[in-house]
Amino acid sequence: MEDANFHTLVVMEFSKDAKQPAIEWMLSRIQASKSQGGAGLLVRSLVMQHNEETVIYISGDTERLLVAAEMMEMKKQYRDGSYREFSVRDVTNFKGAEDLDNFLTMAEKQLIVRHELESIRATEDDKHVPGYENIKLYPGKSLVKKYLSRKIVKNFFPLHDEEKIKRLGRDWYRGIVSSQPIYRVKDYFGEKIALYFAFLGTYTMALIPPCLIGIMYYITSWKSVYREAIFAVFNLIWATIFLEAWKRYCAEITHKWGATDMVSSQFEEPRANYYGKMGKNVITGKSEPVYPKFKRVLRFYGITVPVISLCLLFAFQLMLWYFACEEWVTRQYVEDKAWLNYGMLYMPTAVYAVVIAIVNTIYRMLATKLNDWENHRLQSSYENHLITKFILFEFVNCFISLFYVAFYMRDMALLRSSLAGLLITQQVLGQLQEAMVPFFFFSRRAKQMDSILKKSAVAQKLENFNGEVSESDQRQANIESTMEEYDDTMNDYLEMFLQFGYVFLFSSAFPLAAVWALINNITEIRSDAFKMCRVFRRPFAEQAANIGAWQAAFELISILAVITNCALIGMDPEIRKLLPSNITAVNMVIIFVAVEHIVLGVKAAVAFLIPDVPKWVQIDLARMAYQSKQALLKERLESTTKGKHFLKGLVTQDPDTVGYQI
Amino acid sequence: MEDANFHTLVVMEFSKDAKQPAIEWMLSRIQASKSQGGAGLLVRSLVMQHNEETVIYISGDTERLLVAAEMMEMKKQYRDGSYREFSVRDVTNFKGAEDLDNFLTMAEKQLIVRHELESIRATEDDKHVPGYENIKLYPGKSLVKKYLSRKIVKNFFPLHDEEKIKRLGRDWYRGIVSSQPIYRVKDYFGEKIALYFAFLGTYTMALIPPCLIGIMYYITSWKSVYREAIFAVFNLIWATIFLEAWKRYCAEITHKWGATDMVSSQFEEPRANYYGKMGKNVITGKSEPVYPKFKRVLRFYGITVPVISLCLLFAFQLMLWYFACEEWVTRQYVEDKAWLNYGMLYMPTAVYAVVIAIVNTIYRMLATKLNDWENHRLQSSYENHLITKFILFEFVNCFISLFYVAFYMRDMALLRSSLAGLLITQQVLGQLQEAMVPFFFFSRRAKQMDSILKKSAVAQKLENFNGEVSESDQRQANIESTMEEYDDTMNDYLEMFLQFGYVFLFSSAFPLAAVWALINNITEIRSDAFKMCRVFRRPFAEQAANIGAWQAAFELISILAVITNCALIGMDPEIRKLLPSNITAVNMVIIFVAVEHIVLGVKAAVAFLIPDVPKWVQIDLARMAYQSKQALLKERLESTTKGKHFLKGLVTQDPDTVGYQI
Repeated sequence: MEDANFHTLVVMEFSKDAKQPAIEWMLSRIQASKSQGGAGLLVRSLVMQHNEETVIYISGDTERLLVAAEMMEMKKQYRDGSYREFSVRDVTNFKGAEDLDNFLTMAEKQLIVRHELESIRATEDDKHVPGYENIKLYPGKSLVKKYLSRKIVKNFFPLHDEEKIKRLGRDWYRGIVSSQPIYRVKDYFGEKIALYFAFLGTYTMALIPPCLIGIMYYITSWKSVYREAIFAVFNLIWATIFLEAWKRYCAEITHKWGATDMVSSQFEEPRANYYGKMGKNVITGKSEPVYPKFKRVLRFYGITVPVISLCLLFAFQLMLWYFACEEWVTRQYVEDKAWLNYGMLYMPTAVYAVVIAIVNTIYRMLATKLNDWENHRLQSSYENHLITKFILFEFVNCFISLFYVAFYMRDMALLRSSLAGLLITQQVLGQLQEAMVPFFFFSRRAKQMDSILKKSAVAQKLENFNGEVSESDQRQANIESTMEEYDDTMNDYLEMFLQFGYVFLFSSAFPLAAVWALINNITEIRSDAFKMCRVFRRPFAEQAANIGAWQAAFELISILAVITNCALIGMDPEIRKLLPSNITAVNMVIIFVAVEHIVLGVKAAVAFLIPDVPKWVQIDLARMAYQSKQALLKERLESTTKGKHFLKGLVTQDPDTVGYQI
Repeated sequence: MEDANFHTLVVMEFSKDAKQPAIEWMLSRIQASKSQGGAGLLVRSLVMQHNEETVIYISGDTERLLVAAEMMEMKKQYRDGSYREFSVRDVTNFKGAEDLDNFLTMAEKQLIVRHELESIRATEDDKHVPGYENIKLYPGKSLVKKYLSRKIVKNFFPLHDEEKIKRLGRDWYRGIVSSQPIYRVKDYFGEKIALYFAFLGTYTMALIPPCLIGIMYYITSWKSVYREAIFAVFNLIWATIFLEAWKRYCAEITHKWGATDMVSSQFEEPRANYYGKMGKNVITGKSEPVYPKFKRVLRFYGITVPVISLCLLFAFQLMLWYFACEEWVTRQYVEDKAWLNYGMLYMPTAVYAVVIAIVNTIYRMLATKLNDWENHRLQSSYENHLITKFILFEFVNCFISLFYVAFYMRDMALLRSSLAGLLITQQVLGQLQEAMVPFFFFSRRAKQMDSILKKSAVAQKLENFNGEVSESDQRQANIESTMEEYDDTMNDYLEMFLQFGYVFLFSSAFPLAAVWALINNITEIRSDAFKMCRVFRRPFAEQAANIGAWQAAFELISILAVITNCALIGMDPEIRKLLPSNITAVNMVIIFVAVEHIVLGVKAAVAFLIPDVPKWVQIDLARMAYQSKQALLKERLESTTKGKHFLKGLVTQDPDTVGYQI
């Protein structure tokens, strides 16, 4: 027992009513060696002070973790600076191998522990979870996933590194003008979260030019007839360039992180909540639940599609009500210009913005339920379906009124005020919801926890008989268990997606949108960073090579923006005056449609011509591929030389003419 | 010397004025073993009967070829039916290994011989080609490529297999309704050519439905106002489905051929004609010519772009002249309805079609020259630039007049007659140029060759002192040396590309286009097949996993077709009558534009939703990847077990808890 060395990596919290046999079985399996179907990890079990639930503290010794890192094909920095799959036999050639205990970062160790825990699988003999006759098992099912889905295990999370997170937080959200420490964020939180912040940062920086132009228009009296057209054209080009530049930057940083070639999803295991009759996986041949595809299709088209269509119709109806209210208050004001009625003028937009936020929240719950119910086999397809559901509705809910004003009512003044109202209200609400409320709870919780821990300090001393888990780890586990779980980057991206839409879809109508977005994002980076460091339980450091479906979603908006902006400009009477007066109205429309098609074509060409991966990254990747190919050829050559003797017996010719060289 | 076993695979024909030291050096290098910087192949040199040039007949013994096949990572069918990289040590597990001499097909052996010949490289000692002081060499330069580019070697081609090609030809172009023997075409001509014929076949089959609808419209008197709209909508959907279906079929056959993962182009060597100052390749570190990128960019934007722009302008001007003529003859006919003037009515279109064909030919030569001059480093980028140049000009040259008639003159009757005139004339010209002329030359050449060979029979008996090269091989070499070289699939694809454009871009105006295209293609398959078998020198069996840039080119046309057809229908007065009469002209245009955007969106959605690779191929690929991953993990495990003992010295913990299982 190396008590002094027990550094807790991951904490597993059982629910209050978890039965003792189930807990003990899990404990024994975690400690059992790999060959006995266990995980070969170190555990200490204690009782949580603040709610008396059983908690197990999990760690692993250095050798165990290093071997697992190799089996997981984890990438580490080689002495030549490149990233290679870690190999125990080659360990001395990796950077930082002098101190093997700290060779892996805490985040990496936690990821390994999770992987190893999730790899504990039911064997042929395990028919059900001990203590729960009704919770059936099948060979190959991950025990931890079963415990989680059946709520025997309540939480399962890595511990924060108090010292590191304090230092990271200081440099991250306390700096005012400094750039984000993305590399350290990646080391601590993993590639997926780091990429979100990198994207947020890039996008915020990219908002500066349209912001400056917007301000310039606002403060100067320069009112050209070309004004909107210039701004829109600039924005359309800029949005394309920004998205391409982000793709390149993303390729660059993930290359530096050694995260470019991700494990394919083909061998992804079914999600924890996936259910179905037992069958065989056609690829691996292993037994796993199989849910007929036609049932999923039936559920999707039979229930999901109609329900979502109804939601979209409701969002549309909501908008019609909004305009009815809008009209009513305007009439009131025209009839009686009292100050109350003047104030009322702004009410419908503000109320509508709040209602949109509420409806969005309700819809998100509904969509998540539907998505769960569709029973997707893989986490990745589950996420993609959820993102699509979210985007579709939020797009309609947030933007339909603007489309209605712009293209049905054709009221530019109303478009401007609606856009401003929606954007600003939603941002203020978002900031409140995201930053202020959690901060309040965070402060209160920390104080409460301290008092609980102090009170139970004496009891704890007695109970914690072997004193192996350090007090700070226990305190941390207690605090984190009450913290909110960080769901995913989903909601953060969605917020940026809507903002991107507000700024670019109607940019020619409201140039100041970029200014509001910029102000919001400067605080957003900091409040999101604060949440990551202080409000949420530590997430596992998920890997990612890009921002996935979101890239496509933002690109879709940038295409739509071309259509909307061309239409807005085409409808502008000022611009129309610039064309020769003998052109008929029909031809004028055709001209604008032609321009729109050309802009779309140019946009496609620009996106095609800018390489998605910077040249130096391409060369670096090619060089690595070339080297490994050369190594493979060398190996082949050696084996073929042996093979020649084998061939001699099979063919009649004299093989002396053969003598390969590389 | 195994005289009886010398089966000629490849023939290298030196030019008449090739100097003897250069020929002898090449001969010695080809025969020298790999370790001495040679190719380890077997050669016999003779003098060609019909033109007295030196010819070397090249072959290789079975063992040599098998070892090379492994080094080239050639895929062969394993006993479980899948395709795996051939391995000499594992040879008994491959299909057909009972007869090792015929284990590799003749086409594969020829490909290996070419690869081995091209791998003969200059060493440090080789400063120039013997006999040619001015032809400098640098270490690593392929000798054969140098000989070819400096015209010391005139031709370098594989020999036909007379018996096989006769049988293949019989089943291929003599069958009237039968489908093509694509698998045998692939075995004989390689994946690249087989894919062209598979594409041509699929496309031809896919022409049947629009063809039937077209005929139905023509023979029945059913003239609905929806007629054009129905046909256009059907065609737009159909074109998308065809292109998606082709992608799936292509993935399926290349998977069956084991040709799915091709060697990446990253390590592609510079083209034979690439020149520049000696430098270092940044990826491989080998020395090779380096041509500064800015020079290529300068040439491209400074010369190529202006020249091609001028060509496009010229094509436009040509069209204007055509319409001037058209107008003139119409006026003549209106003034004097003589039969001569009536006949003259059809002249401009026919002449224009011929002129287009001539201008196309001239432009292709010019574009090829420009492309050569741009000095692209890789064959692939050379080809892509050439395809782009070709497509751009031919698109304008062939279609601009139709766009002009359709959207500037808005004359549907003229559009129909122009379309018919252009399509039919070009197809008749194409058939003449491609099939009749080569057939005539082929017949004459075969007779001439026979008489030459008979005359020289006695002389030959004396000269051919060692009698090793069979008479049939010599006859074949003599015939093929006078045959035309099959350039590439480029021109064949280009022809189909233009036809695809004629059929789909204006399908609502001329539904019968599909009928003409179908008739043409049924003969086209056969005449192309005949050319491959009888007219052209045998090409090397190039590999390919898909039709490359052409897929994108056809998809581009199918997108353009949506725009043109929507516009044609939108301009149709009959269709317009169907809309409520109180809609203004402007709103009517807006409605059609909206419809067009929706159709484009639906098209994009259809293309996105239809998986590019059929499910069973995906599963098969995933299963193979899974198996190799498992094998790799096993290997890792073994090496890690050894590594553990190594680790023991580095870490302090007890490693007994570790005991992996897979």
